Amino acid sequence: MTQPVEELHRDDVTTGMDLPEGVLVELIGAIADRDPTLIRQLLAPLHPADIADLIEQLSWDQQRLLAELDASLLTGEVLAEIGYDTRAGLFDLLETQQIVDALDGLDSDDKTMVVEELEPDVREAVLAAVSAEDREHLEASLAFEEETAGRLMQREFVAAPQFWTVGHTIDHMRLAGEELPDLFFEVFIVDEGFRPIGAVPVSRLMRSQRETPLSELMELAKITIRPEDDQEDAAYLFEKYHLISAPVVDDSGRLKGMLTVDDIVDVIQEENKEDLLALAGVNEAGLADTVWESVKSRAPWLLVNLGTAVLASLVIALFDQAIAQLVALAVLMPIVASMGGNAGTQSLAVAVRALATRDLTGANSLRFVWREAAAGLVNGVIFAVIMGIIAAVWFQEPDLGWVIAVAMVINLAIAGLAGVLVPLGLKHFGADPAVASSVFVTTVTDVVGFVVFLGLGALVLL
Amino acid sequence: MTQPVEELHRDDVTTGMDLPEGVLVELIGAIADRDPTLIRQLLAPLHPADIADLIEQLSWDQQRLLAELDASLLTGEVLAEIGYDTRAGLFDLLETQQIVDALDGLDSDDKTMVVEELEPDVREAVLAAVSAEDREHLEASLAFEEETAGRLMQREFVAAPQFWTVGHTIDHMRLAGEELPDLFFEVFIVDEGFRPIGAVPVSRLMRSQRETPLSELMELAKITIRPEDDQEDAAYLFEKYHLISAPVVDDSGRLKGMLTVDDIVDVIQEENKEDLLALAGVNEAGLADTVWESVKSRAPWLLVNLGTAVLASLVIALFDQAIAQLVALAVLMPIVASMGGNAGTQSLAVAVRALATRDLTGANSLRFVWREAAAGLVNGVIFAVIMGIIAAVWFQEPDLGWVIAVAMVINLAIAGLAGVLVPLGLKHFGADPAVASSVFVTTVTDVVGFVVFLGLGALVLL
Repeated sequence: MTQPVEELHRDDVTTGMDLPEGVLVELIGAIADRDPTLIRQLLAPLHPADIADLIEQLSWDQQRLLAELDASLLTGEVLAEIGYDTRAGLFDLLETQQIVDALDGLDSDDKTMVVEELEPDVREAVLAAVSAEDREHLEASLAFEEETAGRLMQREFVAAPQFWTVGHTIDHMRLAGEELPDLFFEVFIVDEGFRPIGAVPVSRLMRSQRETPLSELMELAKITIRPEDDQEDAAYLFEKYHLISAPVVDDSGRLKGMLTVDDIVDVIQEENKEDLLALAGVNEAGLADTVWESVKSRAPWLLVNLGTAVLASLVIALFDQAIAQLVALAVLMPIVASMGGNAGTQSLAVAVRALATRDLTGANSLRFVWREAAAGLVNGVIFAVIMGIIAAVWFQEPDLGWVIAVAMVINLAIAGLAGVLVPLGLKHFGADPAVASSVFVTTVTDVVGFVVFLGLGALVLL
Repeated sequence: MTQPVEELHRDDVTTGMDLPEGVLVELIGAIADRDPTLIRQLLAPLHPADIADLIEQLSWDQQRLLAELDASLLTGEVLAEIGYDTRAGLFDLLETQQIVDALDGLDSDDKTMVVEELEPDVREAVLAAVSAEDREHLEASLAFEEETAGRLMQREFVAAPQFWTVGHTIDHMRLAGEELPDLFFEVFIVDEGFRPIGAVPVSRLMRSQRETPLSELMELAKITIRPEDDQEDAAYLFEKYHLISAPVVDDSGRLKGMLTVDDIVDVIQEENKEDLLALAGVNEAGLADTVWESVKSRAPWLLVNLGTAVLASLVIALFDQAIAQLVALAVLMPIVASMGGNAGTQSLAVAVRALATRDLTGANSLRFVWREAAAGLVNGVIFAVIMGIIAAVWFQEPDLGWVIAVAMVINLAIAGLAGVLVPLGLKHFGADPAVASSVFVTTVTDVVGFVVFLGLGALVLL
């Protein structure tokens, strides 16, 4: 995108935000007309991220036709921006050599991201066709587990010994040229064992005098990341310490690569998406495009929910005599369950969020549990009073008011407890605290709500 | 944190991740002993973010004692890292001059973040006590609405005309010294009207030859942000285009400041937190620390839920005769409502997420609505078959199986529809699609579930 210009004014610059409304329609027309020249004209001024957005909005047939007309439009930068599902489809259309060409020019972390998604046989073919150096790096990255820092890590970085001066470092970088990463934000300072001891932000380097030694400019390398670290843990460190980049070191402490904040932004979004969808009982492929994939991503948790709903019904069935004698119990019982479910979901969301941001740790979990149970209890009392009065007036039966009030207090206090204890328990046993916890919590509140309300009702009112 | 060292080795560097387990206990002990020297010793080697974490884990009395013993420990950097609630409490303990001192040395965006939270009278006093330049900048920032780019924007940045060379730019920066921001990642290139036309990443500047003109190195400024833009929109641009910093321009297009990715990471977390908590019906202060604040953040939505639960009960009451005759209806009705509520919540989470990431737009909303309704329908059929058989066998009544099966299909299809249409509708009317949508969706699935199941039951079975 570098572009030498004689004298440029603001008005000469098209902005990405001005992506013309009609460009998608024009692109679809150009594809239908099989006009690669027009397609290139339309896409040329656009940012790869915008081209990727457009391609994602095409139908599968249009995507196929586009790839046939001019596969070179699918550059590495565009492919890297396209969502997982669409990208997998596009790869099926490309020759091995076309994929290899697309990889060329990407930084090593983006290469890994693209290659890790290829089908095993295509991946083998691509690995065989890239340069020996790329192959070695890719195989080393792919040896780390998915969602680890090793997969995200970029192998291009800039490192210098502490005794170098600013001038020496700048001269070195001017000579190194192509070997440096496309963008970097810090020069890592290493000791004689190539272990990071500090970092100098590039902006600080640039405004210092040439004779200044790096040791005077550096901040100590408080944070190092290991390739096997979970990407979520790396993201937490970036957030907490406001990092822009961070060194990744191997077992012996040697600097092997770096993570940069732009990849971390993607990780944060990914992890947040997973939490939100997991809480709602949607499996990973939740944003997939087809009806069938949507069904598959929802059905498992619906099945679990059916099981727990039937369990709740079995509880109700225990009290069928009571209900037959006093239908008011059947009319009111969903209120107790619903309020408990809601209060439990509230506590659960707060707890899952606090776990994700490490605000809920072993140290304060007792206080947290106590607070949620207490908040549930207080809200239980408030809504017990309201609902007790409503029930007593509605059915002209004060005892019914007392029964629903007591059931409400108990269920909301239990809801607050379950909302925290379930995710803490899941985490304790090494499971994701967001997955499955909703179902557990609402099962607890349903069963407790029905048992307490119907049981008390049978005892007191009949 | 700059530290000149003769010869440093990796082993000499304490890492932030090694924050000793016992330091909180030691700190609490030192506070109890009123020993400011020991407190300073404990905190001195720590990163401001770690100091902030420790302070947040102290009780309110301990925090007060700490501030009394040595208010200078509460530096601007530490205060900026402390969570909103704790910070507000600490400000009450500090003199105006202590707050002014703490602000000193922060970048303008962090100054704004700290000052915007002060009580109005304290804020006035602080504004009167800071330098004229700071006052002018702070007042200009505070004039923008909360959660806009203007509040996040940093007024220190580096700009250069396109005809400058690399050497000229570096020399200029060496001279400018203190006026430059602490950290920056790009030099913005401006035209003669000080309007941004491009940017040169600092790393690219540094590895280019001194005689190269900036116009040869720059990338065109495709993205500019306006101070009145919502911070969520700015965050979206950072994510989509992998920005590290972006220029902020005024009405006439003049460069006024910049946003940097570290602030955007906070915005992304904030917006994600809001969505997750809103979906669970927890108000803003959801992570607050006291029982009373927790109660307040949950009670409003519990009240709304009580209203809708009573509404559902009114629907059930319409069929009290049918229930009295056939208690199986009461036993099974929660299953229909629960499955509908679950399916609706799934669609809702997917839709809210897709709206947040702009994957759900006007262009594809029809396809999205159709897909969710269809997925609900398909899952409805699957679980209708399962539940129909269970009900028929359980109560030895084939017609009951048919009734619950039909009710299930209808309710799950409606759930899929409501899960998308409710957030789309809220967004259409300018409301946050995450807030209140859960309650609307489950109200729909409860009412539809009870009406269809009990209505069909009364019609077919009695």
